[in-house]
Amino acid sequence: MSEGSRKPKAMDHAVMDHRLERLIFFSDAVFAIAITLLVIEIHVPHLTGNVAEALQALTALEPSFFGFALSFVVIGRFWMGHHSAMASVASYSPKLLWPNLQLLMAIAFIPFATAFMSANIGQLVPTAFYNAVLMVSALLSLRVVTMARTLWPVAERHGDWLLMGSRGIGVALGAASALALTFYSPIISQLALVTIPLWQRLAARILHARRSADDA
Amino acid sequence: MSEGSRKPKAMDHAVMDHRLERLIFFSDAVFAIAITLLVIEIHVPHLTGNVAEALQALTALEPSFFGFALSFVVIGRFWMGHHSAMASVASYSPKLLWPNLQLLMAIAFIPFATAFMSANIGQLVPTAFYNAVLMVSALLSLRVVTMARTLWPVAERHGDWLLMGSRGIGVALGAASALALTFYSPIISQLALVTIPLWQRLAARILHARRSADDA
Amino acid sequence: MSEGSRKPKAMDHAVMDHRLERLIFFSDAVFAIAITLLVIEIHVPHLTGNVAEALQALTALEPSFFGFALSFVVIGRFWMGHHSAMASVASYSPKLLWPNLQLLMAIAFIPFATAFMSANIGQLVPTAFYNAVLMVSALLSLRVVTMARTLWPVAERHGDWLLMGSRGIGVALGAASALALTFYSPIISQLALVTIPLWQRLAARILHARRSADDA
Amino acid sequence: MSEGSRKPKAMDHAVMDHRLERLIFFSDAVFAIAITLLVIEIHVPHLTGNVAEALQALTALEPSFFGFALSFVVIGRFWMGHHSAMASVASYSPKLLWPNLQLLMAIAFIPFATAFMSANIGQLVPTAFYNAVLMVSALLSLRVVTMARTLWPVAERHGDWLLMGSRGIGVALGAASALALTFYSPIISQLALVTIPLWQRLAARILHARRSADDA
Repeated sequence: MSEGSRKPKAMDHAVMDHRLERLIFFSDAVFAIAITLLVIEIHVPHLTGNVAEALQALTALEPSFFGFALSFVVIGRFWMGHHSAMASVASYSPKLLWPNLQLLMAIAFIPFATAFMSANIGQLVPTAFYNAVLMVSALLSLRVVTMARTLWPVAERHGDWLLMGSRGIGVALGAASALALTFYSPIISQLALVTIPLWQRLAARILHARRSADDA
Repeated sequence: MSEGSRKPKAMDHAVMDHRLERLIFFSDAVFAIAITLLVIEIHVPHLTGNVAEALQALTALEPSFFGFALSFVVIGRFWMGHHSAMASVASYSPKLLWPNLQLLMAIAFIPFATAFMSANIGQLVPTAFYNAVLMVSALLSLRVVTMARTLWPVAERHGDWLLMGSRGIGVALGAASALALTFYSPIISQLALVTIPLWQRLAARILHARRSADDA
Repeated sequence: MSEGSRKPKAMDHAVMDHRLERLIFFSDAVFAIAITLLVIEIHVPHLTGNVAEALQALTALEPSFFGFALSFVVIGRFWMGHHSAMASVASYSPKLLWPNLQLLMAIAFIPFATAFMSANIGQLVPTAFYNAVLMVSALLSLRVVTMARTLWPVAERHGDWLLMGSRGIGVALGAASALALTFYSPIISQLALVTIPLWQRLAARILHARRSADDA
Repeated sequence: MSEGSRKPKAMDHAVMDHRLERLIFFSDAVFAIAITLLVIEIHVPHLTGNVAEALQALTALEPSFFGFALSFVVIGRFWMGHHSAMASVASYSPKLLWPNLQLLMAIAFIPFATAFMSANIGQLVPTAFYNAVLMVSALLSLRVVTMARTLWPVAERHGDWLLMGSRGIGVALGAASALALTFYSPIISQLALVTIPLWQRLAARILHARRSADDA
């Protein structure tokens, strides 16, 4: 088949897909860089060779290790959500660009929020700041996932949405709980993140009920 | 179909596309790294646990937060322009390599210019330096977009160019305005960036008029 | 062929492959960032221009150069293992996501462990810490490779597994030997990493024997 | 055509290509990260608001700006060489992995060598160190390009090799000249890099003569 006989429509389609791929690629890169940059906020102690001193230095780094692990899982989760929501997008839309950039800005900001919290562990303002950044990221992520869903093929919108939408809502509510709990006790507030699966189940039940109502 | 029967021309074509993909990929990676590196220039304050002191520390970080957000949007915008201009390129050309590398050098330099401005907020030289880097980036971006356009299929050159060319010109003129305004008042100069849409509209009108003249 | 006639099954397949690609891409990015970040832990000395002083400063940096080179090869090796194991995966499975994220967390942590060891070269705790991080990474890598193998086409499972499985086991046992040796002499413990090929050969022999027994 | 009828050989081929793509991708990522990390070695001055002081601070940063620009172009050139040599590779070979990793190690080390030279501009040891790193990188790059060439389709080996091989040899000889010149005068040694095109022309003439001799 000659170059000239290629239909313009098919070409547009290819260009579209390529734009979507670049958008996904750029997002993946930002997620990957942010998640890997977490480590450079952990400062290396210089020791004299004494074992007790070395163990003490490692103990003093525990908040940094905790912050690294927590934010690694958090960014990893956001990436997985992005990954799932974008995988089903059937066609590129420039509408995605701006909300996606806002989400990436929040994600790229997490290494700072993490280091701020870890350096001042258990303090009210840094912990509330971290939990607030988490909640904003969750809301921006939920918006991107919701917008991506409008670009899914119609047939797939119900099944996966139940899972993905409830996941996004769960993370946002879990982060909001952690933020609220900060004002009661900063040190235990991040434990509220373990309530995420409960919120997810609740959200899934409500989304399911609404869908059944829509179908009826 | 056997290996040997593959036409050399088709193969060249595949190699070309692959080179273009790598060029785009490399550029995307540099954009993504530069945009994510912005955060590591924000230095983490170590606090004593006092709430008032913590809020004061966050206030002192406001110029850094402002610089982060501004440059994130700026680099994001440059990426979107690159993204759009490259998406329509029909065939690879080595001519793109060098101007593209110069653009990437300017983009990779933005984290320094941002930190320099944020650390010395409201001062003449750092602000002028930042606005100058922005203007140079805009001009280099405009050159890459213009060059990419010569590689678009003929049929697409008019429609999108009106949009993309005017965008690029708008950003360059907005940055030039900000730079000029710096010498009057550094602190408000970046407000001139909000004139970008106005310059874009003006550029679009002129480009449209020129095209109509060409067609006539 | 019209858009509507595309079979849903084929589409699902494409989506699956795309998800696998993104998973691999994200992993590659984290490996690449972690391996390149190693260099920023080497601190630049400021000199007065005296040649003897400059050579002394370079000598003082030797532990950092050693740590950089060792960890570069180590992360490079883990990447090669990931590369080989994923190349044969026939279909995407969400089961891979979580173990893969744990492996990436260990990899992203290596720049810290490297800098900690280099800054305190020859000391017990930092060296043991480094070797322990290496061993944990090797075990997490082995788990991902093993899990990826369950997603290979049946025909390929035997041949390559002998190679890849034995490699993974070899690295884990080599790192364990280095860790054990640290308690005898930190300064020479990393030499135990040269036993990796021996452990690999041993593991290959055992895996081969077990396979022969299975076939009989 | 059904899934089952796909020939195993074709499948192996796809797997091979995928491995090559990942190798190229990983290399591109390391090049992109190293080139972008150059900027974080430029330290931000904190100023009092005095214009003369600010201009002086920028003047003091000139060696850093020079190092950033020089290494950006150098890494960019190495990337272009890698880009061209890999674009023509017809089939993946695991032989490429190890020499490629060594090249990437040299590339990832350049940000340190750059900062070391810039922080101690005009001094013998740091300048010689930088030029030596450049020369080693050029030799490792030449090895990868030469090895990649053995994987090109036979028909393409002559034409492009003349260009690429001579380029690689030119960079290596230019860096060697710079290194030699360092011992005469560090401050002007990097000017020797402008001899690269001359060495390239010389290398191209010799390669061309050898090819003609081979053909005869």
